[in-house]
Amino acid sequence: MLHNRPYEMLPAVGDRIEDIATPRPVIDEARMAANIARVQAYMDGLGLAFRPHIKTHKLLSVAAAQIAAGARGINCQKVSEAEVFAGAGIDDILITFNIFGAEKLARLAALNRQISGLKVTADSDEVVAGLADAFAADRPLKVLVECDTGGGRCGVQSPQAALALARQIVAAPGLRFEGLMTYPKAGMGAQVEAWFRTTLDLLAGAGIPCPMVSNAGTPSLFEAGTTPVATEYRAGTYVYNDRAMMRMGHCTEADCAMTVLATVVSRPAPGRAVIDAGSKTLTSDLFGFADFGHVAGYPQAVIRSLSEEHGHIDISACEGGFPGIGERIAIIPNHTCVVTNMFDTMVFHRDGIVTRLEDVAARGLVW
Amino acid sequence: MLHNRPYEMLPAVGDRIEDIATPRPVIDEARMAANIARVQAYMDGLGLAFRPHIKTHKLLSVAAAQIAAGARGINCQKVSEAEVFAGAGIDDILITFNIFGAEKLARLAALNRQISGLKVTADSDEVVAGLADAFAADRPLKVLVECDTGGGRCGVQSPQAALALARQIVAAPGLRFEGLMTYPKAGMGAQVEAWFRTTLDLLAGAGIPCPMVSNAGTPSLFEAGTTPVATEYRAGTYVYNDRAMMRMGHCTEADCAMTVLATVVSRPAPGRAVIDAGSKTLTSDLFGFADFGHVAGYPQAVIRSLSEEHGHIDISACEGGFPGIGERIAIIPNHTCVVTNMFDTMVFHRDGIVTRLEDVAARGLVW
Repeated sequence: MLHNRPYEMLPAVGDRIEDIATPRPVIDEARMAANIARVQAYMDGLGLAFRPHIKTHKLLSVAAAQIAAGARGINCQKVSEAEVFAGAGIDDILITFNIFGAEKLARLAALNRQISGLKVTADSDEVVAGLADAFAADRPLKVLVECDTGGGRCGVQSPQAALALARQIVAAPGLRFEGLMTYPKAGMGAQVEAWFRTTLDLLAGAGIPCPMVSNAGTPSLFEAGTTPVATEYRAGTYVYNDRAMMRMGHCTEADCAMTVLATVVSRPAPGRAVIDAGSKTLTSDLFGFADFGHVAGYPQAVIRSLSEEHGHIDISACEGGFPGIGERIAIIPNHTCVVTNMFDTMVFHRDGIVTRLEDVAARGLVW
Repeated sequence: MLHNRPYEMLPAVGDRIEDIATPRPVIDEARMAANIARVQAYMDGLGLAFRPHIKTHKLLSVAAAQIAAGARGINCQKVSEAEVFAGAGIDDILITFNIFGAEKLARLAALNRQISGLKVTADSDEVVAGLADAFAADRPLKVLVECDTGGGRCGVQSPQAALALARQIVAAPGLRFEGLMTYPKAGMGAQVEAWFRTTLDLLAGAGIPCPMVSNAGTPSLFEAGTTPVATEYRAGTYVYNDRAMMRMGHCTEADCAMTVLATVVSRPAPGRAVIDAGSKTLTSDLFGFADFGHVAGYPQAVIRSLSEEHGHIDISACEGGFPGIGERIAIIPNHTCVVTNMFDTMVFHRDGIVTRLEDVAARGLVW
């Protein structure tokens, strides 16, 4: 079912994607299915449970496909996102976020009564104290300690600090210590392994069981085997892939399920083309690139700058020419997860024919 | 009226903004009203008609307030946006975009029958040809020629090219030549004036009346008087203002109507704070800044990087300390127009008390 959006120009099932109104991201069903199958098979081969992060797609059907392929459950970043997917019947949900505030905690408690597999993370006394106040022993909340194993984001800074926080969780009647969680950078597998091993030894010494060790990251996905202590792996971007994943060697252009369709609306001067996809479509995520996306089939085109609804492309190096005014291009975005977040409806296709439309159910939730 | 979004955590009228769920942009009603009044008075003082661009707010109530203050009409970037505001009773709408595609042209034609003040722009033979095919003499479409007067975006490259395109518009039975449009950079007022003067002379020589000369840009707003040939001025960002406008000296922090409320969710290590506002809230628009927003009251804080739902702040230079875990900050975004685009509901307040909520009616429209 789609939201009632009378002013949105939506394609119909059966339309050819080269005819639909632009700018518009579209998802290639076959590529997405192959991405889901490939990574699930990889994790199965390692004997590692897999937990896709829904941030990349925010779609009920895709989460269902990931679970049907063998995923253990899902990873969300917000209470509201978890509510959306729990409402669709998913029971095993890990929210990897420090949750604060009376309203969020009240809704988290309601969600914890609704599903049995809810889990959250915490990295400080303050977070644990807030959770401890909001939950009681009759329906305890499962809490993992977030560990900064070198990624430099959130997380306790040492195995000793992880143990101390686990003790605090164990001491709270309304909480249950469920394990350890991290989001490392690529190439850190051995370091993460050592960090977790030390922590597990400390926990064992303290008599604290640790059911889960949750590792993550699409960038380090195919290094998951270098951290064998992990019991599960989380990743999001793999489902669509994007230019950043291409650069990492994770995938080729033919594995990128999301392309952003755009129309050349101006060729104001030699060497310059302007398209109808700007920062409100592609976003300004550079992710270390020098420009704002890869134009499929035109590797020398440089999306030099973005206005809100215009993309400014330097085509001066395009030896074989470039599409003319009114013609189409397809862009592999630098970062697919943020493009998802710009649209209320996602369009799927197979071999260029629109197969279905779906509300981006978990978009725009605060919180 | 608000869309039915059961999972969104919305505040209630009367709530204190320091209590509402974060991350959330909020609009200070008094500051916004002052911004609207100040710029309208400035334009009135110049005797220049004013046409606000709705891209910054995408809200029906704000467009109505701008028109009530004296604005001539509005500026949109998409047919669908124009439909939203026409549906709310606004008649004078300029769409500053080259419009292509059967569906958009059909809807543009329907809109042109619905309101009498619809106008679009064109900068090439191809755009004019497409428009000419879609409109007939019984209800002609008003078309302005977009001129690249130095801004380097879209637009014909010379006064001679503007004349040639105006001739093509005049020759099309379904089109009416309505004037000239530009989006210059700041500091180009005299150059724009000369460009337009030359073009007007050419048009006069050809016997082509030119009712409108539309100039634009919040960055050059207070230089509008340096292009007296213009008959109207377009601007969007002024309604909220943002960090980029502060840098230009256009406004002070006290004139910024939009602030993004966020919560400190982690202080993982000395010198680092992590907030719950990331690239899916603030966007990655740097706009020439070295970081992703200005933390109100903490000028030494540096929002160094954004994950999707986390902001990573370097607080090592904050001499007076920084809010602790669970405490709030308010951020002046680098670019307010793109933050608007991330949210389905906008929250207004007066002196920190929520006054009303409004659907971001023109958000997420493709096209």
